[in-house]
Amino acid sequence: MARIALTARFRLAITPNALRSYLAEFISTFFFVFAVVGSMMSSRKLMPDAASDPANLVVVAITNAFALASAVYISASASGGHVNPAVTFAMAVGGHISVPVALVYWICQMVASVMACLLLRVTVVGQHIPTYAITEEMTGFGASVLEGVLTFALVYTVYAAGDPRQGALGAMGPLAIGLMAGANVLATGPFSGGSMNPACAFGSAVIAGSFKNQAVYWVGPLIGAAVAGLLYDNVVFPSQASDSLTGISDGITVV
Amino acid sequence: MARIALTARFRLAITPNALRSYLAEFISTFFFVFAVVGSMMSSRKLMPDAASDPANLVVVAITNAFALASAVYISASASGGHVNPAVTFAMAVGGHISVPVALVYWICQMVASVMACLLLRVTVVGQHIPTYAITEEMTGFGASVLEGVLTFALVYTVYAAGDPRQGALGAMGPLAIGLMAGANVLATGPFSGGSMNPACAFGSAVIAGSFKNQAVYWVGPLIGAAVAGLLYDNVVFPSQASDSLTGISDGITVV
Amino acid sequence: MARIALTARFRLAITPNALRSYLAEFISTFFFVFAVVGSMMSSRKLMPDAASDPANLVVVAITNAFALASAVYISASASGGHVNPAVTFAMAVGGHISVPVALVYWICQMVASVMACLLLRVTVVGQHIPTYAITEEMTGFGASVLEGVLTFALVYTVYAAGDPRQGALGAMGPLAIGLMAGANVLATGPFSGGSMNPACAFGSAVIAGSFKNQAVYWVGPLIGAAVAGLLYDNVVFPSQASDSLTGISDGITVV
Amino acid sequence: MARIALTARFRLAITPNALRSYLAEFISTFFFVFAVVGSMMSSRKLMPDAASDPANLVVVAITNAFALASAVYISASASGGHVNPAVTFAMAVGGHISVPVALVYWICQMVASVMACLLLRVTVVGQHIPTYAITEEMTGFGASVLEGVLTFALVYTVYAAGDPRQGALGAMGPLAIGLMAGANVLATGPFSGGSMNPACAFGSAVIAGSFKNQAVYWVGPLIGAAVAGLLYDNVVFPSQASDSLTGISDGITVV
Repeated sequence: MARIALTARFRLAITPNALRSYLAEFISTFFFVFAVVGSMMSSRKLMPDAASDPANLVVVAITNAFALASAVYISASASGGHVNPAVTFAMAVGGHISVPVALVYWICQMVASVMACLLLRVTVVGQHIPTYAITEEMTGFGASVLEGVLTFALVYTVYAAGDPRQGALGAMGPLAIGLMAGANVLATGPFSGGSMNPACAFGSAVIAGSFKNQAVYWVGPLIGAAVAGLLYDNVVFPSQASDSLTGISDGITVV
Repeated sequence: MARIALTARFRLAITPNALRSYLAEFISTFFFVFAVVGSMMSSRKLMPDAASDPANLVVVAITNAFALASAVYISASASGGHVNPAVTFAMAVGGHISVPVALVYWICQMVASVMACLLLRVTVVGQHIPTYAITEEMTGFGASVLEGVLTFALVYTVYAAGDPRQGALGAMGPLAIGLMAGANVLATGPFSGGSMNPACAFGSAVIAGSFKNQAVYWVGPLIGAAVAGLLYDNVVFPSQASDSLTGISDGITVV
Repeated sequence: MARIALTARFRLAITPNALRSYLAEFISTFFFVFAVVGSMMSSRKLMPDAASDPANLVVVAITNAFALASAVYISASASGGHVNPAVTFAMAVGGHISVPVALVYWICQMVASVMACLLLRVTVVGQHIPTYAITEEMTGFGASVLEGVLTFALVYTVYAAGDPRQGALGAMGPLAIGLMAGANVLATGPFSGGSMNPACAFGSAVIAGSFKNQAVYWVGPLIGAAVAGLLYDNVVFPSQASDSLTGISDGITVV
Repeated sequence: MARIALTARFRLAITPNALRSYLAEFISTFFFVFAVVGSMMSSRKLMPDAASDPANLVVVAITNAFALASAVYISASASGGHVNPAVTFAMAVGGHISVPVALVYWICQMVASVMACLLLRVTVVGQHIPTYAITEEMTGFGASVLEGVLTFALVYTVYAAGDPRQGALGAMGPLAIGLMAGANVLATGPFSGGSMNPACAFGSAVIAGSFKNQAVYWVGPLIGAAVAGLLYDNVVFPSQASDSLTGISDGITVV
């Protein structure tokens, strides 16, 4: 990540491997959004008054967990398995990917999300695409804070999963990311929706034609993601992680 | 997979190890279909009007996830853990297994599925075997497209799980496959059924004696599977995956 | 496992490590039975007419999956993580543990199960201990066959999980065992109960004082377990697993 | 852990790595409590009479499982992933961490829990923070015993997950811990609440302003945790784990 001239950076963004990573990111995000939005439609079909049954919360939450874990898994070695513009944003802020690559990632994620919702709209006749919504009990600001906190947790987990210092635990990284997403949806689904993913909120809003509260699903997550990434890299797990007093890290690390 | 004379190919299909792989494939598919069709019967027994409760969707979806993950797991090292004629088809199209072996795999999977449904039919007195069905809101073509897209996601995950470039993540391969299947069922269960597995649809149709819409569960999945396999092998993750400009793949791979 | 005189075998059954394995088996079985029987009581408390809601099936099935995976995990390296007399029986039949050790395992598992049910009985005032029951639609013979088939799947998975040829997949062995158990309960819970574990059925029957249909939960599982173990060891994955025509096992193993 | 002068011990508790471990513990506990208490509020919002639907039990139980697995995962390499004062207590009793470090861990966990509940209280307008409660069928003593037994299981799993003798199974350690917690909630949720975590009970009680039965969630768990840790270290898996009669541990370890 040394200083590279701008043209070189752009050239790096169109190598064959970079192009493959865009395709991998597109595929992962497509299937993640397809599953999440599809599960909301499934719930609504089974029970039109979906807001009143905890089983619907279970449906949407385990869809988030299952779909995110597998979507991250299938693109982990090609694109890093972002599947989420907020994750890409944090990676760019932290300098893990270059800005041009991050921009292409965003475009891929947005297009994938719109196309996934479009496919659902076309094949499932007679149902509207559901959008994320905040409950009456919450203000837009409160929902934004909630989404930001949730995204903090998600991006922090993404960083932990990609940290080589995790050792053998690295093998369950995508699963940990999925489980964190699922837990967050269970905690806040009926309040702010538990999106944590601007692409998901954007795609469903485009196809449904309703951008109400869209800002809630962008401002909070992007801020939360950037803070999580910077905190992880610079405070909690900086690269130079050894004490002058050796032994403390062994003494307190048990699991 | 160099050019081998046809007789040699057939001889390779009846070695002891090949015979063992057929038996492993039979056992895995048997228990997968047994669990999936059994869970549909369980739901229906608990709530005859099963179509109207999201808890039933949870039952069927987590059965798909749990059963596929464990079924792939137990035959992974013997037969590759296909458990699905669409996966076998993609493997044959991509040249990963020979056509004679693929044909025997298909026969094993079909027979296993029919026998699993037969066992359920015989032991559970007074219940019909449920078949996959598409909702009134969908056309047969739409359902076929949906099933094809779902199977694409599943087979893509199978390819990723078997890719040695996944490194330590390979350890959770069967789990990722199962989670992807579960997420897909959650997304489309009430619409097209979320089969993704022609053997499962075939076995239940044989025992129930109703082949209505059977083509939906064959045409879409087989096409989706073949496309996923070819795309994975040739575009997203081709064998020669290094750039002339080294470093880009490190730069963008975080997880 | 060479020929050892009977006294030596008994001496091996009381070494410190053997005693520790008994304690580990006791603890694992205690918490498995505690969770499974406790979850049945939870369901019944929340909804007295528990038989009519699929959410109760989800409760019991994921309890089986979660509790078995973690119970196997915590005793895997000490006792082999049987947690189930049927597994111990299969291991003894296949010669993996000696008969004296197997007998002590059985005693530990039975006592652990009875004590777990006793603890629930004492602390949860005013509820009866539920026992496994077969639905009216089934004959005792049919239920026995079902339980045998389920236990076959479970023990087959236990063998696969413990097989060193699984390589990196070995890391998710306990999870695969738990998922198989959960899938089986989802498939057959409302019909035969989906016990697959004679200790669990025995403990609840002792405390509830009702041994009706107890044979169903012993005959089927023990036969299914023994057949699974013998089939795995001798047919599907015999120790000498290399073909004279090398290459076939690579050719067909993808995942 | 040799004899170190008290001042040295305190110095070890404020090294940069130690400070990082406190922050990691704070973050993990914050998100765990946030998810668990949030899921209770979600359930209550969807169905005000939450005590009467098993789907609510599923919501809370899988939240415990998902959130604990991911919370332990993200702090495992920094702080050991305690996320629970009872775990910290057991580690201190067993001599795995020094008493000053344990005290700071406790403070971090308590403050994190209070702040997580406060965030929920502030953002989710018009809902009270739920507290753990015991059902009418139970005495306080009975609930305390139950919680102690549950915490025993949890801490025993934490010890097993951190044991290097688990080998490859170590990779799924945080998952096993989460699954054990989930199974325990499924077994006892409607009776004692299934807290197993004094910090979680404390934070919600502070914000709700109700300390009724708080002792139940401290006495039982702390005793259960300490017993589990001492038993694991000294009886079941002591460090010198080899028999004079070599071979027995191979003979009985199958998984």
